[in-house]
Amino acid sequence: MLNKDTFFLVLLVFIPVSIAAHFLAWGETIVFVTAALGIVPLASYMGTATEEIAVVTGPNIGGLLNATFGNATELILAFIALRAGLVGVVKATITGSIVSNLLLVMGFSMLLGGLKFKEQKFQPTVARLNASSMNLAVIALLIPTAVEYTSTGIEESTLQNLSVAVAAILILVYILTLLFSMKTHAYLCDVGEAEFEEGEEKREVNLTFWIFILLAVTLAVAVESELLVDSLEVATSDLGLSPLFTGVILLPIIGNAAEHATAVTVAMKDKMDLSVSVAVGSSMQIALFVAPVLVIAGWAIGQPMDLNFNPFELVAVMVAVLIANSISSDGESNWLEGSLLLATYAVLAIAFFFHPVVEGMI
Amino acid sequence: MLNKDTFFLVLLVFIPVSIAAHFLAWGETIVFVTAALGIVPLASYMGTATEEIAVVTGPNIGGLLNATFGNATELILAFIALRAGLVGVVKATITGSIVSNLLLVMGFSMLLGGLKFKEQKFQPTVARLNASSMNLAVIALLIPTAVEYTSTGIEESTLQNLSVAVAAILILVYILTLLFSMKTHAYLCDVGEAEFEEGEEKREVNLTFWIFILLAVTLAVAVESELLVDSLEVATSDLGLSPLFTGVILLPIIGNAAEHATAVTVAMKDKMDLSVSVAVGSSMQIALFVAPVLVIAGWAIGQPMDLNFNPFELVAVMVAVLIANSISSDGESNWLEGSLLLATYAVLAIAFFFHPVVEGMI
Amino acid sequence: MLNKDTFFLVLLVFIPVSIAAHFLAWGETIVFVTAALGIVPLASYMGTATEEIAVVTGPNIGGLLNATFGNATELILAFIALRAGLVGVVKATITGSIVSNLLLVMGFSMLLGGLKFKEQKFQPTVARLNASSMNLAVIALLIPTAVEYTSTGIEESTLQNLSVAVAAILILVYILTLLFSMKTHAYLCDVGEAEFEEGEEKREVNLTFWIFILLAVTLAVAVESELLVDSLEVATSDLGLSPLFTGVILLPIIGNAAEHATAVTVAMKDKMDLSVSVAVGSSMQIALFVAPVLVIAGWAIGQPMDLNFNPFELVAVMVAVLIANSISSDGESNWLEGSLLLATYAVLAIAFFFHPVVEGMI
Repeated sequence: MLNKDTFFLVLLVFIPVSIAAHFLAWGETIVFVTAALGIVPLASYMGTATEEIAVVTGPNIGGLLNATFGNATELILAFIALRAGLVGVVKATITGSIVSNLLLVMGFSMLLGGLKFKEQKFQPTVARLNASSMNLAVIALLIPTAVEYTSTGIEESTLQNLSVAVAAILILVYILTLLFSMKTHAYLCDVGEAEFEEGEEKREVNLTFWIFILLAVTLAVAVESELLVDSLEVATSDLGLSPLFTGVILLPIIGNAAEHATAVTVAMKDKMDLSVSVAVGSSMQIALFVAPVLVIAGWAIGQPMDLNFNPFELVAVMVAVLIANSISSDGESNWLEGSLLLATYAVLAIAFFFHPVVEGMI
Repeated sequence: MLNKDTFFLVLLVFIPVSIAAHFLAWGETIVFVTAALGIVPLASYMGTATEEIAVVTGPNIGGLLNATFGNATELILAFIALRAGLVGVVKATITGSIVSNLLLVMGFSMLLGGLKFKEQKFQPTVARLNASSMNLAVIALLIPTAVEYTSTGIEESTLQNLSVAVAAILILVYILTLLFSMKTHAYLCDVGEAEFEEGEEKREVNLTFWIFILLAVTLAVAVESELLVDSLEVATSDLGLSPLFTGVILLPIIGNAAEHATAVTVAMKDKMDLSVSVAVGSSMQIALFVAPVLVIAGWAIGQPMDLNFNPFELVAVMVAVLIANSISSDGESNWLEGSLLLATYAVLAIAFFFHPVVEGMI
Repeated sequence: MLNKDTFFLVLLVFIPVSIAAHFLAWGETIVFVTAALGIVPLASYMGTATEEIAVVTGPNIGGLLNATFGNATELILAFIALRAGLVGVVKATITGSIVSNLLLVMGFSMLLGGLKFKEQKFQPTVARLNASSMNLAVIALLIPTAVEYTSTGIEESTLQNLSVAVAAILILVYILTLLFSMKTHAYLCDVGEAEFEEGEEKREVNLTFWIFILLAVTLAVAVESELLVDSLEVATSDLGLSPLFTGVILLPIIGNAAEHATAVTVAMKDKMDLSVSVAVGSSMQIALFVAPVLVIAGWAIGQPMDLNFNPFELVAVMVAVLIANSISSDGESNWLEGSLLLATYAVLAIAFFFHPVVEGMI
């Protein structure tokens, strides 16, 4: 744990550097790279602050806070990109976050955990329920694109209405899954959290301090996201990366670095329930909460974002959900299963790298 | 049970009303709506009559009767629509029946059953076998469309031959599943029926009476179906519904109302084996028996119907089978799983509502 | 076992006949058919020779030999066809081998085994791991085609680079699965082989003799493959078969006849672990080893073969993997499940038969 903490502390230095790079005009690429590195520790501190506040508020409001702020970094970054009109990049980040949580994060967890422990077990009931929720989420994301592809011509406003309706259903489902896991069937799902807190004595939490930290971090995330979004187009084109690759592969690695570190760390302590729930839970939050909130937010701020994705993004999401479900549904993992997830991620990443820039993507 | 029976009895009044509406020219919309309402109780009585006759004929012929007449209402309605040349509507009704049985009927059963009982269990072996049969059925329905989409041009007669060959295989598979569940592996599958008859004393059945009822009901279904089909085009266009929406969403709700009532009623008595087998069994009957019989019947009466579906219908069926299998394969259900099925249905229904009218559909 | 051995011995006569037919110009169709029949016993003897050598070399190198030479017949045949420029036929043979192993071989094993034994069981852990590997393999094969279909225009060289990169990942995954099943988790996977050798006393093996046999058989396979490939175009066109049907249906039946005989024989002795591992293992070898080796070999000999398949081939592979996984993942089989696999194969074979000849296929 010490290494991770020190590492994140060091990365904080990139926040002032990125701001300096912006005002002193050191070049878009330097702004982009330093802002990206600066966001990594912020996402982690946002998670810590939310959890500390949750200790005071009790499990119910705490669970809600975690569920809402768990992907706040992605949400802020995506919202700023959306406001800037980078609709294609935002959509790519959504699919990329799902793919990288299910394949990269879960893959490294199972591989590194599996190299230490021959076989690792986790709750299959929850894994299967999550698999079904992810299936629904993927279906919902797929439907508007499928409608567009199977009709001879559909108006943009119809697609937009369809997307808002689908988004409303997804948010409802998200609320229902919270109700299920925190109220009616909490006994099924709190294995992971119990493990997390295991051995931790009751402690005092300074609420005012952590609320202040949360606000400060949120502000810093917003600033860094602005810098990142402003420099994105020029920087990625200088680096020879397509916007699709940037959105699907690069941005989610930055946004999910904190989850990544947590999931791998706990997997190496053989707490696979928690490790899998971090990876899959984060994907579900993106699909059932972040994506629909962005659709509705975009519609509210006059930057309409429909759910009509680039078909290859859908292929990637379907593939990720298929293989992640196939591997996690038996409640057991080993190093080969981790490797299969990583190999799938590698195949997709290479394909996105070679994929010609798609019309309509900024 | 009383409520359902009374309700169906009241609905019978719509039969004379629909006939009057037709002959007194009260307007196509009134004919359509009243004929639709009149069919609902008839489907239920057809089921009752078949089961009563099955008591006399013994389990073997009885099972066969149930397997053949179980979806007789859908079959008659579809045949009359097919004869009237509404090929697109018939195909839409086939996919819609599969989708609504797997998502709407099973979804309400699991939701309402799950609100009463925390966890409900059913036979996973049968569930998985049914899942495999449904996979095969979907594959078979998908293949002709896939052949058309992946070739640069295919003659209608080739598609027709392919469809008839596929239909013959599906009917053969249907016969094999009957053989399996009634002969060689009956012990696996009769849980549901045993529960159904539980507590029922041996009783006398008036065979002549029930055969007469079956004939009368069949005749009435045919008459109402004629009225429904004749008024369909004008009525749905007056109601602002596309033929695709009518076929996929509206007609299957009418045709499956009886199964729906049964599946939900038994789920609320915690007889999930029976509830799931009604929903999934009905889907399988549509896919493995009704659809291929219609292909062959259409070919015989000179109204050829191939299995080349609108691709979005295939997306809907694939999605329904995928999520229904993912939810039912572990032999357990709860209210959230029911909600996921209903949410998927809602997403599909909205998509069909917004889907532009497709060329070639009447 | 006697019958199979005698049968294969008799088939050897077609080797000289095919050579005579070639040099005496008896016609391409006779050359094609006799060469095809001649290959069947050779594939079987190649397997026997490899296993005998493996007895001497010990399990590690032996396992490696089996893993490398297990599909040597397919590899030699495909390589010769590739050198002759029949890229489309080679690709079709790859997909066809996967499909026929999963559906035809496993289907007949489960059907014939299931007619003798009511329920047959096999290791579900290994079945599920194989399912995940097959999912990855299918995904990898699907990706280049998906990239091509979802972009407005992609250069052939990009597709080729993408295919080589994907091939490298697949070979790496193949090596990892060998490491897993032979080293780190051997205890999970050697059920099948233990059964295979059960009751066999320790015996002397004449290494020189079997190496000589292996070389002779390899040479004969190469000669017969040359004859088969040379006569393929004229012969299949005379027989009224499209090159697609030949590649997907006909050639894999010839190449997999030996595995087929073994899998069915052991299934009828209720050794389902071994039966399933022959069928699925062979598919995995094709997807994770033979296909990528051909991509790299084609690139080396200047006959570049990308992984951009005919979309209907992909549909067939996806369908086969989906239904095979759905049937095998519970570790149980019965005759109906075998029938479902065979019915799926029949539907696909009919579809390939009716599929119009595709542009770009020789």
